[in-house]
Amino acid sequence: MLILGIDPGSRYCGYGLLEIQKKRIIAAGCDVIDVSREKDILKRLNMLYSAVDAILDEYNPDVATVESMFLQRHVRSIFTLGHARGVILLSIARHNLQMLEYSPREIKKAVVGNGNASKQQVRYMVSKQLNLKSAPKRDDAYDALGIALCHYHRIKYEL
Amino acid sequence: MLILGIDPGSRYCGYGLLEIQKKRIIAAGCDVIDVSREKDILKRLNMLYSAVDAILDEYNPDVATVESMFLQRHVRSIFTLGHARGVILLSIARHNLQMLEYSPREIKKAVVGNGNASKQQVRYMVSKQLNLKSAPKRDDAYDALGIALCHYHRIKYEL
Repeated sequence: MLILGIDPGSRYCGYGLLEIQKKRIIAAGCDVIDVSREKDILKRLNMLYSAVDAILDEYNPDVATVESMFLQRHVRSIFTLGHARGVILLSIARHNLQMLEYSPREIKKAVVGNGNASKQQVRYMVSKQLNLKSAPKRDDAYDALGIALCHYHRIKYEL
Repeated sequence: MLILGIDPGSRYCGYGLLEIQKKRIIAAGCDVIDVSREKDILKRLNMLYSAVDAILDEYNPDVATVESMFLQRHVRSIFTLGHARGVILLSIARHNLQMLEYSPREIKKAVVGNGNASKQQVRYMVSKQLNLKSAPKRDDAYDALGIALCHYHRIKYEL
C-alpha cells in the first residue's frame, strides 16, 4: 500500500510517500514542489497543478492524505492557500483517488502522541519512525511524511 | 472583443459574456454553474473545473475578469471559496487567457458610480446598461455580467 501525504502551500508544497509492507513502513520518496519564484498567480497555480499531476502519475498511490486548513492565519494567506489546495484537490479528484484530510492537531497526536507538539518534535519523530538516513531538503517534505504517517497510525490495526 | 466575467462561488458560480462591438455592448450569454447538489468536495471541484473549461472552450473569450476576494466572510467560507477560485484560475491559466481581478467596491463604482451601492442597485444597472429583456435565472449571473461590465468601463476609452 502506498500513502501519499501532501502539505499544501502556495509557494512550497511538501509531498511524501510511505510504502506499507505488512507492518513495515518505508519512506518511498519525499520532496518539495517549489513554485515560489513564479510571481504570476495563474502560472503558479498551473505549475503546482502540473507538478502534483506528475507525482500522482509517477507513483500511483492508493490514497492521498492532505493537511486540513489552519484557521490561525491572515485572511489573505488563507485565500492564497485555498487556491493552492483547490488545484491539489482537483488533481487528486481527476486521478479518482480517495482523499483524507487531517488537522495539524490530529497529525501531532498520531505522530508524537501530543496534539500540542512543536513542528520540531513532529519532524524528529517522523525521521525516527521512518529511520531516515538523510534529512529532506526542506521541512515541508518532513511535514508531508508526517501527514502520511498519521494516516498509517489511523489504519494500521485494520491492515 | 469578448469579455468573460466570473463571480466565483463554491456552490453557485455565475458567468456572463459581454461582446463589445465598436462602442456597443451586448450580453452574449450568462448563466450559473450549479454544483450545490454535489456534497463531495473532490467531485464538486472537478465539476466546477470541467464546467469553466467547457465555457472557455465554447466562447473563447479575449479576457477573463474575476471578482477578487472578499474579506468579510467566515474563515471556513474563505477557504471553500479559495478552493473554487483556485480551480477557476487554473482553467483560465490553461487556456492562456489574460485575467483581471476587480474588487466588489471597484465593480460597484464602475457600474453604479458608487462603491457602496447595494447588490440590487448593481443588478438594476447591469440590466439597464445591457438592455436585458429577460432576467437571468439567478442573481450570480447578473453579478458576473457586472464584473465584465466593470472591465468594459475601465477600458472603453482605449477601444
